[in-house]
Amino acid sequence: MPIITFQPSKKTIDVPEGTELLDAARNTGIDIESPCGGKGTCGKCIVRITSGNVDSEQPGLLSESAVKRGYTLACKTKILDSPITVEIPEQSSKTGGQFIDETDDTCLVTKDLLPKDFQPDPLTVKLLLDVPYPQPEDGLSDLDRLTRSIQQELGKKEVAYPLPVIRQMAEALRKENENGKVTVTLAKTPGHFNVTNIEPGNQTTRHFGIAVDVGTTTVAVQLVSMPTGKVLATQTAYNDQIDCGLDVISRINYARRPNRLEELRTRVLKTINTLIDQLGDGNEVERDEIRNAVVAGNTTMIHLLLGLVPEYIRLEPYTPTLLETPFLKAEEIGINIHPQSMVYFAPAVGSYVGGDITSGLLCTDIASGSEEVNLFIDIGTNGELVIGNSDFLVTCACSAGPAFEGGGIDNGMRAALGAVDNVEIDGETGMPTVRTIGNVPAKGICGTGMISLLANLFLSGWLDAAGKLNREKKSPAIRTDGRQAHYIIVPAEESATGKPVTISEIDIENIIRAKAAIYSACALMLEQVGLGFDALSTIYIAGGFGRFLDIEKAIVIGLLPDLTRERYRYIGNSSLMGAYLVLVSGEKKRRQLELAGRMTYMELSTEPAYMDQYTGALFLPHTDIKRFPTLKDGPQNTQKDTEKKQD
Amino acid sequence: MPIITFQPSKKTIDVPEGTELLDAARNTGIDIESPCGGKGTCGKCIVRITSGNVDSEQPGLLSESAVKRGYTLACKTKILDSPITVEIPEQSSKTGGQFIDETDDTCLVTKDLLPKDFQPDPLTVKLLLDVPYPQPEDGLSDLDRLTRSIQQELGKKEVAYPLPVIRQMAEALRKENENGKVTVTLAKTPGHFNVTNIEPGNQTTRHFGIAVDVGTTTVAVQLVSMPTGKVLATQTAYNDQIDCGLDVISRINYARRPNRLEELRTRVLKTINTLIDQLGDGNEVERDEIRNAVVAGNTTMIHLLLGLVPEYIRLEPYTPTLLETPFLKAEEIGINIHPQSMVYFAPAVGSYVGGDITSGLLCTDIASGSEEVNLFIDIGTNGELVIGNSDFLVTCACSAGPAFEGGGIDNGMRAALGAVDNVEIDGETGMPTVRTIGNVPAKGICGTGMISLLANLFLSGWLDAAGKLNREKKSPAIRTDGRQAHYIIVPAEESATGKPVTISEIDIENIIRAKAAIYSACALMLEQVGLGFDALSTIYIAGGFGRFLDIEKAIVIGLLPDLTRERYRYIGNSSLMGAYLVLVSGEKKRRQLELAGRMTYMELSTEPAYMDQYTGALFLPHTDIKRFPTLKDGPQNTQKDTEKKQD
Repeated sequence: MPIITFQPSKKTIDVPEGTELLDAARNTGIDIESPCGGKGTCGKCIVRITSGNVDSEQPGLLSESAVKRGYTLACKTKILDSPITVEIPEQSSKTGGQFIDETDDTCLVTKDLLPKDFQPDPLTVKLLLDVPYPQPEDGLSDLDRLTRSIQQELGKKEVAYPLPVIRQMAEALRKENENGKVTVTLAKTPGHFNVTNIEPGNQTTRHFGIAVDVGTTTVAVQLVSMPTGKVLATQTAYNDQIDCGLDVISRINYARRPNRLEELRTRVLKTINTLIDQLGDGNEVERDEIRNAVVAGNTTMIHLLLGLVPEYIRLEPYTPTLLETPFLKAEEIGINIHPQSMVYFAPAVGSYVGGDITSGLLCTDIASGSEEVNLFIDIGTNGELVIGNSDFLVTCACSAGPAFEGGGIDNGMRAALGAVDNVEIDGETGMPTVRTIGNVPAKGICGTGMISLLANLFLSGWLDAAGKLNREKKSPAIRTDGRQAHYIIVPAEESATGKPVTISEIDIENIIRAKAAIYSACALMLEQVGLGFDALSTIYIAGGFGRFLDIEKAIVIGLLPDLTRERYRYIGNSSLMGAYLVLVSGEKKRRQLELAGRMTYMELSTEPAYMDQYTGALFLPHTDIKRFPTLKDGPQNTQKDTEKKQD
Repeated sequence: MPIITFQPSKKTIDVPEGTELLDAARNTGIDIESPCGGKGTCGKCIVRITSGNVDSEQPGLLSESAVKRGYTLACKTKILDSPITVEIPEQSSKTGGQFIDETDDTCLVTKDLLPKDFQPDPLTVKLLLDVPYPQPEDGLSDLDRLTRSIQQELGKKEVAYPLPVIRQMAEALRKENENGKVTVTLAKTPGHFNVTNIEPGNQTTRHFGIAVDVGTTTVAVQLVSMPTGKVLATQTAYNDQIDCGLDVISRINYARRPNRLEELRTRVLKTINTLIDQLGDGNEVERDEIRNAVVAGNTTMIHLLLGLVPEYIRLEPYTPTLLETPFLKAEEIGINIHPQSMVYFAPAVGSYVGGDITSGLLCTDIASGSEEVNLFIDIGTNGELVIGNSDFLVTCACSAGPAFEGGGIDNGMRAALGAVDNVEIDGETGMPTVRTIGNVPAKGICGTGMISLLANLFLSGWLDAAGKLNREKKSPAIRTDGRQAHYIIVPAEESATGKPVTISEIDIENIIRAKAAIYSACALMLEQVGLGFDALSTIYIAGGFGRFLDIEKAIVIGLLPDLTRERYRYIGNSSLMGAYLVLVSGEKKRRQLELAGRMTYMELSTEPAYMDQYTGALFLPHTDIKRFPTLKDGPQNTQKDTEKKQD
């Protein structure tokens, strides 16, 4: 009889072929919920097969990529005649993301951005060299022979070695049975080949890199196998700096007190290093095998990560210490990969348009050969916009706040397992039908969920244009508590936490402020370059809302301009994606520097017209309804229109 | 009445003008020895005037440079009508060198080696820059503006900044009242300008550097003011590695056990850092103000200092990890100067001819325009020889042991205060007349003293050619203890330690071995290049014997070949001097690399003829007396000859 091993408890059981996995688990004393009674509809019995084969039905609750990674419903899985190992997910995981293949979520377009026959051409390479053993009278030191071999392979650039590498040299070059074969890890930095490691023998196949996106609210790290360019996994977590302020300005203010800059630096490093550990552990990659890193982030985040005084980013004339960051050693930054690794930072354009944006642009066609004008919007805690074509690129920034990433919203959360990402509203009763990521009990609501919730409440008349819930037409989902009302998305008894998942009118106000900041920046920038929304060919929307941003709903709440839906393209976390592209491709790195050089920064915050635009946008969808022609006949009709379009 | 302050006790006294300083001290309760009764002949009342003027007679016991530095005999010094501060030397100083101007001792020829109108052109410079304040819309970061200013000043090379420097940037560039004036410390490394510090305002006058000579037995550090190139002070101490083996081979063997390499590294760093502290404290220079360093040392010493496996220096084909060391940061090496400073290492030629030799050559004319063949001999624990002219340079090495630096000799010591450096012998009684460095009670005997002692004992018939003391002709200075005899140089009651300063026949054997190693290497190398001693034009003798090596006596014991004395030039610690030259002069650095590239290394140890030569040289002066024609008629006559020549 096949043996089944359950992780992490290590319990085992022998069961006859054909037994249902859910039953096998229960027989072992492992309690897996199954409220739908094994019909495969509730999705609460998700487990992961980490070794061995099973016979499973996939009723469509899991993403294709999750299935590929071994996730399955225990109630729809039968044991075959072979031993298997089953991982029981810990439903209360705090950092989230473990059960969803976030690679899919965050890198929606990566595959299209590299040619089919792409060969990785990273900043840091592993070279297999044949270094002759020392010869009497040749007068060459170990370092001389190694340098000669490197230059024969790569050309006559200065070769630099840090002391720890020089210390490895004598033994690596004399290793028995290797005949002088050594693997050298080497970063191509300006003017130099920087050797960061030497190993005896051929170690070229194990070479890893990380792409890091340091957001104000969310940090994402991607583990990449350098020889193939394959993304092994992605992990995201909240930036541990959140406790010190929700947006960049409050972080900069926080940093003014003594030792606080160091605290902020330590906090974001902790977040990054925890993610690296998780990725490494999950993929059996040692931290010393990670030799390559590209970091993208807004200018403030990079200053805080490096411990640079951020104060002058906030003060006129808004001059940061650096825009292009020189290559720095992982060790000096404090990033826990191989200490000598050279870390590359995506170049920034200005104090409020950082390397996250130049990375994001790499994921678009915005500056390609065509004369068509395109718009790129990165919706994060800061919103950044770039408009342009092959001739010009103008960029600006606005402060949206962390609402869409779950920050500053009572039950807000990142787009991770258990996040509500879609809410349909019954027009009559005002009651919700909820979908969560991973189809597990809800833990909170992510940005996509908020947009869907607000749009559907508005369209069904349960929310007015000013963001107030309808208290007259009674709904069991709307509770009033003094002057404030809130909406119950998931009742306590159905949530993962035992508490209801709700949204308050204060939360709604925050979301409206966020969308107003983005929309008004968008409108004003177009005005400044003398173009209307109609002039735009493609609008790229980047941001970590969730798996899929519903553009239709984003227009309903007035986050995005009311344009033909075909013009929109949602590209997910393009900062991380761009960092990945730079990590694997020297050509993308050059392209990014070129784009950064071409961008003109426009300061909106000092523009008096910005406040007018912003105030006008503090309604659903906007005070000036003419700007939203498809919504002009009011919520009720629009809902029909929208539904028609969706058909 | 003028006030006199005594240091370090801080006692003060008012005395009438014209009072003798010795009396003034005694009146304050300070006990200064004066065995000669104030005649100015014993030299035991040496003190130093650190401020104020005095009226002093100099009976010639002190060197001119010591007098310049304020040293005087208390018994020959009268108080004038002005306050003075007097330092009472601590006679028992362990590291020594405090009272002698070692600058004079070790840098005998420095002044001749630089042109009169020399302007320092160091590897690391301090630049005063005018960096414009940030301007709205100029789109330049702090780093961009600084880089632009540096490149405008020095040319278009890549400018590199370590993270701690980037962290200083924002505040340094915005310092009130400085109008963007900043002082940048910058090292010119291959392919880069390496910025190692930024300070607001003009800080160019305070800029210091160190030249370091890491010898197997002795370490010397020199503190230099970079704007002027002036040597502020020199300190020497025994290499703390001595406890782990007296010569390079025993150190390499020591390093084979686990953690022993790290121990050796830590020990030599401790020695260097202690010397740096002493120099800094004595000259009111903060360690962070020292931004420039050049290190010279033999190949093994450099490997041990850097923590590099030295094993393959000892094993055929004798290949070290490095000959030319890349620039390294002080911080990564562990040298306690400004942590970001770039340290330059003098290039080595082979496993046994190191950067100490290429530095030493800079202090000679050996490879200059002329066709005359010259010889350079550096007599340290390892002896290294270079022969050549403008066409060729051949080099070899031999192991002499530490005897001439005081190592492995019972009462041996470095050439420091209290070291016996000359011993005259009474032919009749065999009794010595002793001179010590600083004319203070003897603590031990230095290399120069040993050579003088052995030569004079030999010339007066108290020592035979085999190195045995004459036991037949009784002398109170010769004591026999079992089979061993020893010679009492200074009796217990006259020494500084309360113990006699002696030399045993075992010590004498060690000295003879050392001189034999040097002489035979010299003879064999000349033979190998097909030249006789007569072909030599100038013979440069380098080494830390003492203030002045008596060439005459060195020939008598057979350390040096018997050539006209005019051909010899004693140049002291030329490794330290050469390091100093490279520290202050870019041209000398280039010259040194060129010399290193031109030198051909000859391995003597594998040469069977070497052992024959060596065995023949284990006598005073040599088994083959024909090689020493001026000594051919035996000791007694030679003494007369020598005396005649000296007249």
